[in-house]
Amino acid sequence: MQNERYESGLKKLNEIDGEAGQKVIDALASVSPDLSKYIIEYGFGDIYQRPGLDLKSREIATVAALTALGHCQPQLNVHVHGALNVGCTAKEITETIIQISAYAGFPAAINGMLVAKEVFIERGIIEE
Amino acid sequence: MQNERYESGLKKLNEIDGEAGQKVIDALASVSPDLSKYIIEYGFGDIYQRPGLDLKSREIATVAALTALGHCQPQLNVHVHGALNVGCTAKEITETIIQISAYAGFPAAINGMLVAKEVFIERGIIEE
Amino acid sequence: MQNERYESGLKKLNEIDGEAGQKVIDALASVSPDLSKYIIEYGFGDIYQRPGLDLKSREIATVAALTALGHCQPQLNVHVHGALNVGCTAKEITETIIQISAYAGFPAAINGMLVAKEVFIERGIIEE
Amino acid sequence: MQNERYESGLKKLNEIDGEAGQKVIDALASVSPDLSKYIIEYGFGDIYQRPGLDLKSREIATVAALTALGHCQPQLNVHVHGALNVGCTAKEITETIIQISAYAGFPAAINGMLVAKEVFIERGIIEE
Amino acid sequence: MQNERYESGLKKLNEIDGEAGQKVIDALASVSPDLSKYIIEYGFGDIYQRPGLDLKSREIATVAALTALGHCQPQLNVHVHGALNVGCTAKEITETIIQISAYAGFPAAINGMLVAKEVFIERGIIEE
Amino acid sequence: MQNERYESGLKKLNEIDGEAGQKVIDALASVSPDLSKYIIEYGFGDIYQRPGLDLKSREIATVAALTALGHCQPQLNVHVHGALNVGCTAKEITETIIQISAYAGFPAAINGMLVAKEVFIERGIIEE
Repeated sequence: MQNERYESGLKKLNEIDGEAGQKVIDALASVSPDLSKYIIEYGFGDIYQRPGLDLKSREIATVAALTALGHCQPQLNVHVHGALNVGCTAKEITETIIQISAYAGFPAAINGMLVAKEVFIERGIIEE
Repeated sequence: MQNERYESGLKKLNEIDGEAGQKVIDALASVSPDLSKYIIEYGFGDIYQRPGLDLKSREIATVAALTALGHCQPQLNVHVHGALNVGCTAKEITETIIQISAYAGFPAAINGMLVAKEVFIERGIIEE
Repeated sequence: MQNERYESGLKKLNEIDGEAGQKVIDALASVSPDLSKYIIEYGFGDIYQRPGLDLKSREIATVAALTALGHCQPQLNVHVHGALNVGCTAKEITETIIQISAYAGFPAAINGMLVAKEVFIERGIIEE
Repeated sequence: MQNERYESGLKKLNEIDGEAGQKVIDALASVSPDLSKYIIEYGFGDIYQRPGLDLKSREIATVAALTALGHCQPQLNVHVHGALNVGCTAKEITETIIQISAYAGFPAAINGMLVAKEVFIERGIIEE
Repeated sequence: MQNERYESGLKKLNEIDGEAGQKVIDALASVSPDLSKYIIEYGFGDIYQRPGLDLKSREIATVAALTALGHCQPQLNVHVHGALNVGCTAKEITETIIQISAYAGFPAAINGMLVAKEVFIERGIIEE
Repeated sequence: MQNERYESGLKKLNEIDGEAGQKVIDALASVSPDLSKYIIEYGFGDIYQRPGLDLKSREIATVAALTALGHCQPQLNVHVHGALNVGCTAKEITETIIQISAYAGFPAAINGMLVAKEVFIERGIIEE
């Protein structure tokens, strides 16, 4: 059954975060494969499987929280990819980050926006 | 024109946050009416007027960010009201907070959920 | 199997946090029993079951982190109880909080220490 | 010599924070008098004794930082008193907090302003 | 009128932050010119135009808050420049950061000081 | 006497943090030797000299707090070294960081773990 959580979680991770999620798993492999396992099982096997909030809204919530926290830029990168992968527009992502400027201040919003910029350039959505 | 931002902002504040928003404005009146003015003008006259992200998504982003920050419980109370006022279900709000447990930990999620609980009780959505 | 994680987690929660842990579960019951379930399964069914770090060290780490974060005082209360329950002395707890003054500043340390004080008074370790 | 740091620190604490500072020391007395000792020695015997930045600027910096951190409201209360005691005007304090709205968001600024409001009322600077 | 806020804001931004501020605006241009617009209008057209707190004190407050928050180092860089541009001495800046060590801990102070160091080297105030 | 605090602090810093601690002192030398002095005196001359909590537990508390805060990765690097130097196993360090995932979320835990990974590679504990 744990295998089920892990397997459905890994599938969901790949569906949402794609290559960016796999890189996190790979980076942790030599130091703590168990932390990866928990991220997959709890994050993607439990939470992202839940009904009651669509994937687009889950990614908007995640982009908002990571922007506000301010010290999670590698994870924000992954979830800007994730938001785009589940159907958010670039506009919805930049609006979410602008929204956060009122709640966590301009520095958090600027730093979050520059992470979004990198992802948008990488995916050819904007030019440098 | 500043009047226009203020007036459309105040209207939007009342539309979204209702009585809960007005209480914040009242509480600040004797100490810093200008801070209220900026919240209304920038928060509600500029940001919440923007197209590109619907009001429900803006409130989900706000609930997510305030839950993650952890030190903004009076504001989270206002925005759980706000989320309900613009059409979010109680379920969408609790799912947003559960989502944040993976990104900001269980204490932030528990404290956010207990704020939501208070609002839900106040509005008769759940019983105590 | 999920039942197994839940059941061993609940047992561990009761062993470590005692009555203080149960109160958290009860407080969440009407608004989000699933958040409780995840705390029990992931926090206490997965993490606290792990070998490689004894329970006293896990509670010291938790007291340190919650003191540093600063916005988790109800949870710090629970884990000061937890630390005492797994065999930490009051001295080890106050030393942990003093240690944090260097890393997160005096306000976080003072606020953490006053939470410890409440628990110590409640348990008759110090007088008011 | 440690006595010297402590004694000059205690004098400075009383000069700056007055009764509000003494209450913190008293609150810690039964649980960790050593934490008080360090606050007095390091905070007020070392830092606040330093030349190169006047006391008014030190209190403005402190009010700004505590407002931004968001989880230090008892300490912000003490330092709004402190700022007034060393000659800041109520206006300079409210301007400092408004300034922080741009860097840490409106919730932190609102919560900081309401702490200032309490102190201003307590000291008869504004009416309730 | 919005133009007025923008124009006086841009002038103030250039006066205070100089080239460092312009770089932020440029960096955001391709991804979210509106976020720049709000920073200029609200931050520099509204806040920095206010009487009641001199520019040196506003920059000391900002350096203090950004140091304490810890996750805003690019913005701290801009505002160390800003503080110097409006007449703060390097000493006043390092004292502000030392002051913050008591309120947000040594790591935040060290990281803030190393940002100040970079700016001081860039401007020839100290040698590497 | 201040010299005594400084000298015993420097000795303790070298004992615990080794080369990694010295690098911090060196980096601050040209900009603020006084901040170094306070870190040595208060951090290592006062706090780390205290009885009542063994050095291993102090380092576990520090690793936990720095991981949770999220914006202190250079300091976390120093204290992963420190933890190993005072006898913590790599396992105890990774378990401490996994423990924090429940209290501060996965992003803080991932970023902390990748800092631990760097140190472990540098010291030949794991391969890249």
